[in-house]
Amino acid sequence: MTHNPPSQPTTLHRPPSIVALAGGVGGAKLADGLAQILPPERLTIIVNTGDDFVHWGLNISPDLDTVCYTLAGLANPLTGWGRKDETWHVFAQMERLGAETWFRLGDKDLATHLERTRRLSNGESLSSITRDFCARWGIRHTILPMSDAPVRTIVETVEFGELPFQEYFVHQRCEPTVRGFRFEGIERARPASGVMEAIQQADALVICPSNPWVSIDPILRIISPLLAEGRPSVRVAVSPIIGGQAVKGPAAKMFRELGIEPSALAVARHYGRTLLTGFVLDESDSDLAADVQALGIHPAVTQTLMKTSDDRRQLAQDVLHLIEQFV
Amino acid sequence: MTHNPPSQPTTLHRPPSIVALAGGVGGAKLADGLAQILPPERLTIIVNTGDDFVHWGLNISPDLDTVCYTLAGLANPLTGWGRKDETWHVFAQMERLGAETWFRLGDKDLATHLERTRRLSNGESLSSITRDFCARWGIRHTILPMSDAPVRTIVETVEFGELPFQEYFVHQRCEPTVRGFRFEGIERARPASGVMEAIQQADALVICPSNPWVSIDPILRIISPLLAEGRPSVRVAVSPIIGGQAVKGPAAKMFRELGIEPSALAVARHYGRTLLTGFVLDESDSDLAADVQALGIHPAVTQTLMKTSDDRRQLAQDVLHLIEQFV
Repeated sequence: MTHNPPSQPTTLHRPPSIVALAGGVGGAKLADGLAQILPPERLTIIVNTGDDFVHWGLNISPDLDTVCYTLAGLANPLTGWGRKDETWHVFAQMERLGAETWFRLGDKDLATHLERTRRLSNGESLSSITRDFCARWGIRHTILPMSDAPVRTIVETVEFGELPFQEYFVHQRCEPTVRGFRFEGIERARPASGVMEAIQQADALVICPSNPWVSIDPILRIISPLLAEGRPSVRVAVSPIIGGQAVKGPAAKMFRELGIEPSALAVARHYGRTLLTGFVLDESDSDLAADVQALGIHPAVTQTLMKTSDDRRQLAQDVLHLIEQFV
Repeated sequence: MTHNPPSQPTTLHRPPSIVALAGGVGGAKLADGLAQILPPERLTIIVNTGDDFVHWGLNISPDLDTVCYTLAGLANPLTGWGRKDETWHVFAQMERLGAETWFRLGDKDLATHLERTRRLSNGESLSSITRDFCARWGIRHTILPMSDAPVRTIVETVEFGELPFQEYFVHQRCEPTVRGFRFEGIERARPASGVMEAIQQADALVICPSNPWVSIDPILRIISPLLAEGRPSVRVAVSPIIGGQAVKGPAAKMFRELGIEPSALAVARHYGRTLLTGFVLDESDSDLAADVQALGIHPAVTQTLMKTSDDRRQLAQDVLHLIEQFV
């Protein structure tokens, strides 16, 4: 039997190299979808650390942990934070000892904060600690904090004045009226080790469906000098707002309180054409596609709500298809 | 019906006021026995903190916790350390994250260290934290650390040179040969708030059956200026050595390695007549009573092994009877 080789060389499909920006739940889900498709060397996830804070004397990085737990298959699928199969033995005793209980820390989750705090005190960087934790949790893709320097999101509210983010988000359950945001320390915060290299080598940037104000903006502020150099040239965002509502969290409420009608279009406008090449809207918002197009941003319409693991992979696939039109 | 009052005024029995010095297990048991008998205002327990150390970034006070857990009914009756009904969820995750696992910390126990560490970092003193924890655990008697300043017991060994106490005790399982001890920081450590007052007001001092070298000696060093003033005048020790063996821990091994045949008599000699008024020996050591007497210390013989809660109360009662001969 003879093999007849094809006359033309075969073009082997090489997936694009992606840097994804993510906050908590929604961002973690799309990041997980991308990780299901892309090989480890083709995906770096850069995570917001503006939500980080110290509680019970421990350094807590809520968004970083949500992304890591999600990719490791350790996340609690019901709450959007913390670990699955969690127990609360430490918490019950802390309550008995009079500790603050407005931020719930489960036993499994606590180990993460305890070991991170110990290593940070020993001078190890957050990115190095995260790299090691990921390896131990079996995560093969790269997850990086946006910076190794502390950045603290402050929410300016009508009722309480300035509130540290978790005070606003968890303690006050997002109830205070928002007037603006401030990212303490962001001027001095340089991108974490590995962030610059990942962006310079990436074919495209994906802005996951996380809160634009408090999850994505801090990351964009940190990496803006890199983006200003024009790399990567393809940049796509997925709307965290569907039908005028945030899938989870206070994004829509924030838009409203800042005097902007919340919608996918408002998100596209928030990021703007200077930043974005393409924008993914939910099919229920397909009537906004023309308005996005009018902004000078290429719209793509698909089902963006991620209820299952398959939904995550499908949305990631759709995002990659959009990107491949430009790469 | 007419009441004929007795012609003489009734002498109401007022129990003596006691300061007890305690290390871990044995000390905690007798302290618990004393607490079963004496009203809260008549018992202050001063606990060794030379065993304290930092592990996983947390301030751990093993003897203090053993005494508190024992009096609160929270102690693990099998191990001699930690909490009963303990779980190990944090520990399992810490192991997965590569943390040191030679010192086991259960979930319930961990809350104690976590909250103590947080408060110490905020500038609260160990004695104040202990007072608050005791109130929350329902302990009505006063438990005080010997000092609010850090004192660190260093064990001088043949094989490893100097070892911090928990390295020797837990990590090396007391296997290295002991050459001596050093109490780092003891020169600068003043008695904790409340210690001086308790000693000045006490009718008697009880040295619980704890390790003389590493549990009691550090406390004696701290309070020696007070004892030198002659208060309290009655001082009674209970032997931690029965039949030449330590009930628990390395006391007998330490005596031997320091060139002293371990026995209740060796303990009485170690403390000496300048310190002690009376000395309680186990009935199995009754043949040593005459030798103790010859040291100028009044011996008392009883059953000193505390297997049950009743044993603790009975030994405490025996100690109080001995004290009442001198008060």
